[in-house]
Amino acid sequence: MEGSRTPVRESIEFARIVAFTDGVFAIAITLLVLSLEVPSDLQASALHAFLIDSWPQLFAYFLSFAVIGRFWIGHHHVFSMLQDFDRRLIVLNLAYLSMIVLVPFPTELLGEYGGGSDAVVLYALVVGTAALLGWVMLRYALRHGHVRPEARAEAAGIPARLLLPAIVFYASIPLSFLSPETAQLVSVGLLLDAFRRRG
Amino acid sequence: MEGSRTPVRESIEFARIVAFTDGVFAIAITLLVLSLEVPSDLQASALHAFLIDSWPQLFAYFLSFAVIGRFWIGHHHVFSMLQDFDRRLIVLNLAYLSMIVLVPFPTELLGEYGGGSDAVVLYALVVGTAALLGWVMLRYALRHGHVRPEARAEAAGIPARLLLPAIVFYASIPLSFLSPETAQLVSVGLLLDAFRRRG
Amino acid sequence: MEGSRTPVRESIEFARIVAFTDGVFAIAITLLVLSLEVPSDLQASALHAFLIDSWPQLFAYFLSFAVIGRFWIGHHHVFSMLQDFDRRLIVLNLAYLSMIVLVPFPTELLGEYGGGSDAVVLYALVVGTAALLGWVMLRYALRHGHVRPEARAEAAGIPARLLLPAIVFYASIPLSFLSPETAQLVSVGLLLDAFRRRG
Amino acid sequence: MEGSRTPVRESIEFARIVAFTDGVFAIAITLLVLSLEVPSDLQASALHAFLIDSWPQLFAYFLSFAVIGRFWIGHHHVFSMLQDFDRRLIVLNLAYLSMIVLVPFPTELLGEYGGGSDAVVLYALVVGTAALLGWVMLRYALRHGHVRPEARAEAAGIPARLLLPAIVFYASIPLSFLSPETAQLVSVGLLLDAFRRRG
Repeated sequence: MEGSRTPVRESIEFARIVAFTDGVFAIAITLLVLSLEVPSDLQASALHAFLIDSWPQLFAYFLSFAVIGRFWIGHHHVFSMLQDFDRRLIVLNLAYLSMIVLVPFPTELLGEYGGGSDAVVLYALVVGTAALLGWVMLRYALRHGHVRPEARAEAAGIPARLLLPAIVFYASIPLSFLSPETAQLVSVGLLLDAFRRRG
Repeated sequence: MEGSRTPVRESIEFARIVAFTDGVFAIAITLLVLSLEVPSDLQASALHAFLIDSWPQLFAYFLSFAVIGRFWIGHHHVFSMLQDFDRRLIVLNLAYLSMIVLVPFPTELLGEYGGGSDAVVLYALVVGTAALLGWVMLRYALRHGHVRPEARAEAAGIPARLLLPAIVFYASIPLSFLSPETAQLVSVGLLLDAFRRRG
Repeated sequence: MEGSRTPVRESIEFARIVAFTDGVFAIAITLLVLSLEVPSDLQASALHAFLIDSWPQLFAYFLSFAVIGRFWIGHHHVFSMLQDFDRRLIVLNLAYLSMIVLVPFPTELLGEYGGGSDAVVLYALVVGTAALLGWVMLRYALRHGHVRPEARAEAAGIPARLLLPAIVFYASIPLSFLSPETAQLVSVGLLLDAFRRRG
Repeated sequence: MEGSRTPVRESIEFARIVAFTDGVFAIAITLLVLSLEVPSDLQASALHAFLIDSWPQLFAYFLSFAVIGRFWIGHHHVFSMLQDFDRRLIVLNLAYLSMIVLVPFPTELLGEYGGGSDAVVLYALVVGTAALLGWVMLRYALRHGHVRPEARAEAAGIPARLLLPAIVFYASIPLSFLSPETAQLVSVGLLLDAFRRRG
């Protein structure tokens, strides 16, 4: 298995894993627009009211666009430090992607039912688990020598930072039972903070 | 981090940013077909009438296909002049893409409610903001030395041209309150003009 | 601008045009599955009847999968003969893709209303126009020197073959008013023939 | 034509076939999220009940994500052993992809009607046929010399393993008439086994 199963950085196989991953990110982020539904047969005045009332959906759209975009930047950074893959790393990457792909579902819930705790809990669960799996993936890559020698020092400093959003999003779950709006605001604040940081 | 965080033109990381961007463009343009809905259980005669009445949807489909295609050509051209990226440029690119991805939403509104000003205003707002963010992105790249030396003279001449569609689409907003149809015609005319130009 | 505007075969820009085109083909072919709708809340027996009755939708799915796949093979072949692009060729390629992207719409019509002439006419119109635009694109590339010297002899023999499906699909339009089923069978026969051929 | 029709491993044409295939896999796996529908206008308590009742849909989502992901890993492995393509291999690959793209349809059925045998049968039929076509594709590549010399010994050992899931999924069809739940459990068990294996 060793030779043909360990795609090195310059091979077509390495490129395919990256291309597949980028494709999944690109599609998941683009499907977010499908959560913005257009009703049929409204009167002009009803359409106006509908669009005014659509701001939670638009807010959820931009929030999730930023969340998926932020994950993509982080994934991009982590993969830039890898020198090869093994099967388990590919499976971990798939598990991670299964959470990214799920994001449009709680996004739509958040747009429709953002005032209730169910939508916020599910949203935090999906995003927190994605962050957690990103952390697991980087730990695994570090432990099993898939990180390029020159990037090891930098990579070793990342896992804790990757865990931070996981903890925050999980921590927002009990908060969201008390006050869903506060939980959302906390998430947005930490997201803005995450964009400021590296990683 | 500086070294590994500045993907140069030949790196996998540069290619990933481009591939992700192209993927998002390709998906957004293809999702436009979902705005053409097929009703169930119509009689043959009702189907005929439905298809005849579908021309505004088809018009909106082709208009948005041309708009996204035109933005893709422009983006393609701008990116061909870059020599590397930094984090802010990636974030600006994501913000720009969040407008491109949104286009199918006002497209569907335009197909359903093209006669009213709400749909036209929203359409102009999304497309105008995309053009504006494209302008911001190129300005940033020029100011921070991300443009290849040999392309700098050409790049310096572009921003004003990029701003033109932004101004036009924003300007069509007040016009659309007076006459939505005229605003649409102006947009189409300027789009045809844009295809004639370079950039 | 000439230098930077003419992506040659080895450049990132050439690769982007190809990647965007392949992305659009891949998405359009995959969106075909969305024409297969799953009703909610059926009884077990009603579900069984529904699935039995779904064969026209499944037939339309496989027909369009084969059609888009066949166009992709042809496009793949034509692009393998190009040495560079200019702006008009990119615009022609976009116009061609606007027909490929549209295919899921008449596919869904064909699945729902295949027995009527409207669906068959629209299907033939879209597919015939795609073939026609493919022919225009290759003619343009040949005339303006975008075909690699060693491929010119082969390329010169293709346009007529590309025109054949256009003629056939257009010709099936009057036939479909007489007998939609016959028009469909003719299309399928010619499609099978097309897969046998090269190009 | 022979020369230009046989894309070798380093050519743009080889890369396009791979990119198109990865794109189709990426989109099919991402469209799975569309099977998770969000109802409008539920009360908070009804939303809670709805989410609790959604576990079969979530189960179907993760099952199909794992199935498509597993097929992608296998396809990735098989393609890494090829040295070139011919037209028939491309057509076989398209036929194989037409089954992968279909997966979201029985997935949605399984989520809605998992307790009945129809959904399980259709699911097993689609996944089994995909595995069968993967087997046909590899046999063809081996027989017609498209496998790289150094990978031939390894490739020759794979077809039987590829056939195993086909047989299992087909075998689950009669089982699903007796007990759909058992058939599902068998599938999941064999899937877990497949992830453990190579190939």
